[in-house]
Amino acid sequence: MVVNRPGEFEIIETYFAPLTKEPGAFGLKDDAALIVVDPGKDFIVSTDTIIAGVHFMPADPPDLVATKLLAVNLSDLAAMAAEPIAYTLAAAWSGETDASWLGRFADGLKQAQETYGVSLYGGDTVATIGPTTLTLTAIGVVGKGLELRRNGANAGDGLYISGTIGDAALGLMCLRQGLNGLTKPTADFLIDRYRRPQARVALARELRGLATAAIDVSDGLIADLEKLTVASGTSALVTVGKIPLSEAAQAAVERSAELIEVILTGGDDYELLFTVPASCEKNVRYIAAHVALPLTRIGDINEYRGKDRPVQVVDNAGLEISFPRSGYNHF
Amino acid sequence: MVVNRPGEFEIIETYFAPLTKEPGAFGLKDDAALIVVDPGKDFIVSTDTIIAGVHFMPADPPDLVATKLLAVNLSDLAAMAAEPIAYTLAAAWSGETDASWLGRFADGLKQAQETYGVSLYGGDTVATIGPTTLTLTAIGVVGKGLELRRNGANAGDGLYISGTIGDAALGLMCLRQGLNGLTKPTADFLIDRYRRPQARVALARELRGLATAAIDVSDGLIADLEKLTVASGTSALVTVGKIPLSEAAQAAVERSAELIEVILTGGDDYELLFTVPASCEKNVRYIAAHVALPLTRIGDINEYRGKDRPVQVVDNAGLEISFPRSGYNHF
Repeated sequence: MVVNRPGEFEIIETYFAPLTKEPGAFGLKDDAALIVVDPGKDFIVSTDTIIAGVHFMPADPPDLVATKLLAVNLSDLAAMAAEPIAYTLAAAWSGETDASWLGRFADGLKQAQETYGVSLYGGDTVATIGPTTLTLTAIGVVGKGLELRRNGANAGDGLYISGTIGDAALGLMCLRQGLNGLTKPTADFLIDRYRRPQARVALARELRGLATAAIDVSDGLIADLEKLTVASGTSALVTVGKIPLSEAAQAAVERSAELIEVILTGGDDYELLFTVPASCEKNVRYIAAHVALPLTRIGDINEYRGKDRPVQVVDNAGLEISFPRSGYNHF
Repeated sequence: MVVNRPGEFEIIETYFAPLTKEPGAFGLKDDAALIVVDPGKDFIVSTDTIIAGVHFMPADPPDLVATKLLAVNLSDLAAMAAEPIAYTLAAAWSGETDASWLGRFADGLKQAQETYGVSLYGGDTVATIGPTTLTLTAIGVVGKGLELRRNGANAGDGLYISGTIGDAALGLMCLRQGLNGLTKPTADFLIDRYRRPQARVALARELRGLATAAIDVSDGLIADLEKLTVASGTSALVTVGKIPLSEAAQAAVERSAELIEVILTGGDDYELLFTVPASCEKNVRYIAAHVALPLTRIGDINEYRGKDRPVQVVDNAGLEISFPRSGYNHF
């Protein structure tokens, strides 16, 4: 325990009660929170835990830790086409957490919750003998039957990705070991993409009733595509040359061609990977313009080809490329 | 990392997927879970975190750790008169967690969820460099407007407690330092009450529309009563002699009269403390018989007497008793 860390009730009152907005949060002063449900809607719930020294570094800016924690959960809701409305935060603070860290963390959360139109409803605040461990549970709503699953892709569907892929993994490389020959603005862009993921909430809204399946890219493009195809009982063909890269990622790959593997198998992009019937290609172009986000067809969903071949990646000449690993393993 | 700990996907598949029951859990295989909401109901959400070495001991039986984790969250829902339906579990496992621990933990969870009629909907599984840290978020439903709050008590209401008070705190003393002169069965009873709290779900159901306020006793009878009276803008008078004690707690107090302080200020009872209009005393007697649980009037709710005097405790002669601390502080 450290002298300048506030106590439980002070933490709740000073840093977290101001993040509540709805009457059902009861100002964090009751046993639980009440979330009003509109008729005809169901709930979508997602939970993620991040740990200092594992998922973020103790020296990371606390506001960005908060922003990312909320965004990764809302990204899971977006992958199911849910509208985020609420979240709870269960925080186990290490002895090194001081008032300044808490204040900047709460500021980040405040900014992020305003971006996404959600607010805090409740949680738990405890002291831990280990590293700071933060669990956020995000709650969204979706019209009955309108949720998007991983398992709805059909052979013949087009396979799409939002935004650009690989920036976050390259950003993490910049932070950990540096990437040779990149200008500072280029490296900063990549690092920012790693630190400030965007949950694709506006896109998710538009995909309801159009997409047949969706997943957010958190473990790596190929790894998450594998999950989608396995769940759907299909396979997928991806053409590397179609994968949308930012200018920064392009600059990195031009210098070191082997970075394409990092781009395809690195995680933390939090873009939406989704499938759409071939006949609906026009709708996707309309949505891309409407949400001001590139939506790129990177390949196709095909028939099931056996459990060991869920995803085929080919170069522009049609030759298959293979990778030793498809994505991030949490253990 | 330890050799015999299974990997993330194996843990989910082997231990946690079998705890799902509802289609909306998607067998823990999608990005988030879907919880179907009945018309006319709202959601009640509660989150608690427990940490090895802080809230439970690494050597504690894993099934009892699981049972308690679920029960303490459902107790929060019960305090708001919600019907529990679902929970998520975010688990950060330490390197010492082996397959046997996980198996017994999942067994305990399975038994507890059957007792309460809830099932697992989702969560997160990560490895931690610190102690095992478990966050459970429980979700319940309640008819619109039927939730119980802490802030509804009125002067003139009767103040009631379910079950018996103090057993858990005495049980913890038995575990930590032993309690002189108690027979083994008596000590075992108290320890069991500490390790196996019961969420008063059936009672909560009956209190809807009858009780004016409720809170579960987790931090200590006096501490939690203070919260209820402060929230309600009232005060309370409690007569020590009316507080229901188990035979085991009576035996302990007969040997050491000063243990009454432990009984009144120790936590972990998870009984419901609630207030009922004086005119409804008969209904409480009916409910006690119906749910087969003692419901004892331990005092009254009175007018507000200033912020420093929310709770008055008197002995049988009406003389005020004071305590250096009212309950458990989490920091």
